[in-house]
Amino acid sequence: MEYYSTHIGKLIEELGRLPGIGPKSAQRLAFHIISMPADQVKQLADTITAAKTNVQYCRICGTLTDAEVCPICANPARDHRQIMVVENSRDLAAYEKTQKYEGVYHVLQGAISPMLGIGPDDIRLKELMQRLQGDVDEVIIATNSSLEGETTAMYISKLIKPTGIRVTRIASGVPVGGDLEYIDEVTLLRALQGRTEL
Amino acid sequence: MEYYSTHIGKLIEELGRLPGIGPKSAQRLAFHIISMPADQVKQLADTITAAKTNVQYCRICGTLTDAEVCPICANPARDHRQIMVVENSRDLAAYEKTQKYEGVYHVLQGAISPMLGIGPDDIRLKELMQRLQGDVDEVIIATNSSLEGETTAMYISKLIKPTGIRVTRIASGVPVGGDLEYIDEVTLLRALQGRTEL
Repeated sequence: MEYYSTHIGKLIEELGRLPGIGPKSAQRLAFHIISMPADQVKQLADTITAAKTNVQYCRICGTLTDAEVCPICANPARDHRQIMVVENSRDLAAYEKTQKYEGVYHVLQGAISPMLGIGPDDIRLKELMQRLQGDVDEVIIATNSSLEGETTAMYISKLIKPTGIRVTRIASGVPVGGDLEYIDEVTLLRALQGRTEL
Repeated sequence: MEYYSTHIGKLIEELGRLPGIGPKSAQRLAFHIISMPADQVKQLADTITAAKTNVQYCRICGTLTDAEVCPICANPARDHRQIMVVENSRDLAAYEKTQKYEGVYHVLQGAISPMLGIGPDDIRLKELMQRLQGDVDEVIIATNSSLEGETTAMYISKLIKPTGIRVTRIASGVPVGGDLEYIDEVTLLRALQGRTEL
């Protein structure tokens, strides 16, 4: 590409590899980065390197964290007898934002997907079963409401049931603010099946 | 944010400052970067730093380039008597992609915008006038077809006219593949005014 400097071309290429960044966005981002003050650019580059270098998986729940044990697992004020099983750290963050969940988490780092060749041994199920040998009252399965998430939920519940620990699944239904008109039939049916007394 | 590691939080914040990257995209990008192999992350960070450090403005045309003079200005095969005036390096790149323009460029690094307080002295007009003291046949004004671009085009043409150098403006009209039904009235009118003999 004669019209770009080699360095800009490389930067556009690198940025274009990130998910959701097309060639046009990559170009815009690259030119923006070039126009940023040098110290801000340095900070961006350093933050990227630092995040990759310092972030690790929590020894207990498996979420991404700075220390050996994440702040949630290390917090004695949380209810360690209630474990919510999520697919990834982003789902954990989503529930943490509600600020209403007092228990701890278990991050599977994936979901069972026969299509993608991901089996029960490829996600952190063994680690979950090990945790259940401790003092646990309830396992709340909060995997996504997708085919993979449902399969994983089903598998986990069958695995845990024999231990006698209570296994629950988060409710499926119409999202708050959702317009019935635009919601798919399966969700509507789930909402009906899961109706509660008023 | 207890639910994120400090490093991920910082990375999300840094990425969220880039244009067109909202909080959700920043989060997705951050988690993607964490999951990338360490050498790829290093490469991304290094490319960002290298681009900022090594890219400079071409001494002649003002585009972003690796050397003191950009490959286009340094190319003796190009017609240096024909100068296309563009607002920024991205616009230059857009015309270069056509692979049909044989002349050179002049990058204004902006456009006159009274609203944003950008006057004629804030863009590279002085540099353009200096170049015109050399051997120049034609100045093609290819600023955007926006209010600012048109204002700038008008200003430049008035500035150059007295020198006797030919000043032209790229055509405005219906984009190729465009459907008349969805094109605004001003563009339709411009297309009519600029009609050519068949």
